[in-house]
Amino acid sequence: MSEVLTLTLPAVRLGAAGGEERAEQVALEEPLELRLQTPTGPLTLAVLMRTPGHDRQLLQGWLVSEGVLPKRFDLYPDAENANVWHLHTPEAGSIASAARLGVSSSACGVCGSGSIERLAVRASRPQWSADQLTPKLIFSLPERLLAQQMGFQATGGLHGAALLSAAGELISYAEDVGRHNAVDKVVGASLTQLPLTNRILCVSSRAGFEIVQKAVMAGVAVVVSVGAPSSLAVTTAQVFGLTLCAFTREGRSTVYSGLERVNTLPLG
Amino acid sequence: MSEVLTLTLPAVRLGAAGGEERAEQVALEEPLELRLQTPTGPLTLAVLMRTPGHDRQLLQGWLVSEGVLPKRFDLYPDAENANVWHLHTPEAGSIASAARLGVSSSACGVCGSGSIERLAVRASRPQWSADQLTPKLIFSLPERLLAQQMGFQATGGLHGAALLSAAGELISYAEDVGRHNAVDKVVGASLTQLPLTNRILCVSSRAGFEIVQKAVMAGVAVVVSVGAPSSLAVTTAQVFGLTLCAFTREGRSTVYSGLERVNTLPLG
Repeated sequence: MSEVLTLTLPAVRLGAAGGEERAEQVALEEPLELRLQTPTGPLTLAVLMRTPGHDRQLLQGWLVSEGVLPKRFDLYPDAENANVWHLHTPEAGSIASAARLGVSSSACGVCGSGSIERLAVRASRPQWSADQLTPKLIFSLPERLLAQQMGFQATGGLHGAALLSAAGELISYAEDVGRHNAVDKVVGASLTQLPLTNRILCVSSRAGFEIVQKAVMAGVAVVVSVGAPSSLAVTTAQVFGLTLCAFTREGRSTVYSGLERVNTLPLG
Repeated sequence: MSEVLTLTLPAVRLGAAGGEERAEQVALEEPLELRLQTPTGPLTLAVLMRTPGHDRQLLQGWLVSEGVLPKRFDLYPDAENANVWHLHTPEAGSIASAARLGVSSSACGVCGSGSIERLAVRASRPQWSADQLTPKLIFSLPERLLAQQMGFQATGGLHGAALLSAAGELISYAEDVGRHNAVDKVVGASLTQLPLTNRILCVSSRAGFEIVQKAVMAGVAVVVSVGAPSSLAVTTAQVFGLTLCAFTREGRSTVYSGLERVNTLPLG
């Protein structure tokens, strides 16, 4: 594949020697909208958060997976927006009635910044009034989560999420086959405390756009993940002023956003 | 948490000494439907594939994440189906008009077997007429995929999927931040060859229900994953006669379904 799958961003690697500025490659993540052309206008058939590249194959495979592959069809990219594709088929009517479709908006909104703008309509910047976080505390969070993950230890097949105080005390945790569900479970367990000011969300998984989106909606200002971040997760964290620490494992972590909440002096 | 998050299933571990029967714990996966009570009847607000347990917290957190948390509401489980919850709120009208909601079906269908039945309406058993697979070939597939995963090697944040022949020859591969997208990309790349008889789908990720569902829809009879399977993935593979090999790494693999396609004699 010759597509560009990654983006290089500035970040700070935390280790025993303190913080070190680095250029880090992250996986690209952008929304892709598929529009069904009908006699009465375009309808949105799907919006997928995906890594750009092989978009035609992705949409063809999606039509197969969803069981809505038409016998005859034409699939072509929008002339202006690389994140919009159009589906033209004589079967548009039956597809539209089988799915529950909304009228498509203009092509302008379907991009990373459009996703962030839609989030901004519903949420504001999470607040943080606690002390700076030490690298030692950040490094310890995944271990604290893993110690609770009985289901993961038994199956290797469950994601974990934990909500912690600014001092690293465990408030709640959850496990689920779906990493987004695990986050919803810990947010939902603290429903009466919303917004979750001075709280840390720690996830055993990667940090994609939707994980950061859930943190923003819940008012959580610090996200710590064991796995990698996506490009749109980093951008969203930056726009909403979140601290995003990824690859947090084995005494290391990489800060992609919100470094002001992290004490980067060498460990004493 | 005292919930039951796992299920113990019979499986066969493949290693250098051949196949060994084992009881394996897998993560539970079942659908959860949230129904909005409106004056004109119940509407389906969401169907989440989740691990049962902390369902109230999950749904509360989901309402926060989606930005549809009502000021006043009552959330209660269905009297008959543990996979159905009801949302009662004076704001039902505005929530229903903001989302695009379909009329709820009866409670009977919302369970693992209901998900499998809906799949059976749209797909039949994938076919396989090639030779048995040797453990050596199965073990080699993730390495063959990883050798192609330039994006993963650069970022640690991209899932990979590959379609291979019964002899292990690479037909296509793709990378994506979404593991389901990666599968759709390789299926979509072989659109003119559907159904994908005598093909192997290899994924760098876990094998949940949706991965097996996509294989079934594409006519792929063998799924090999690096990560763990879920309970519903295993059951679906068994119902549709798929071979499901999970935890395929470092010269090992565990077969949860379709052992008849695997040569379990010791490696010579």
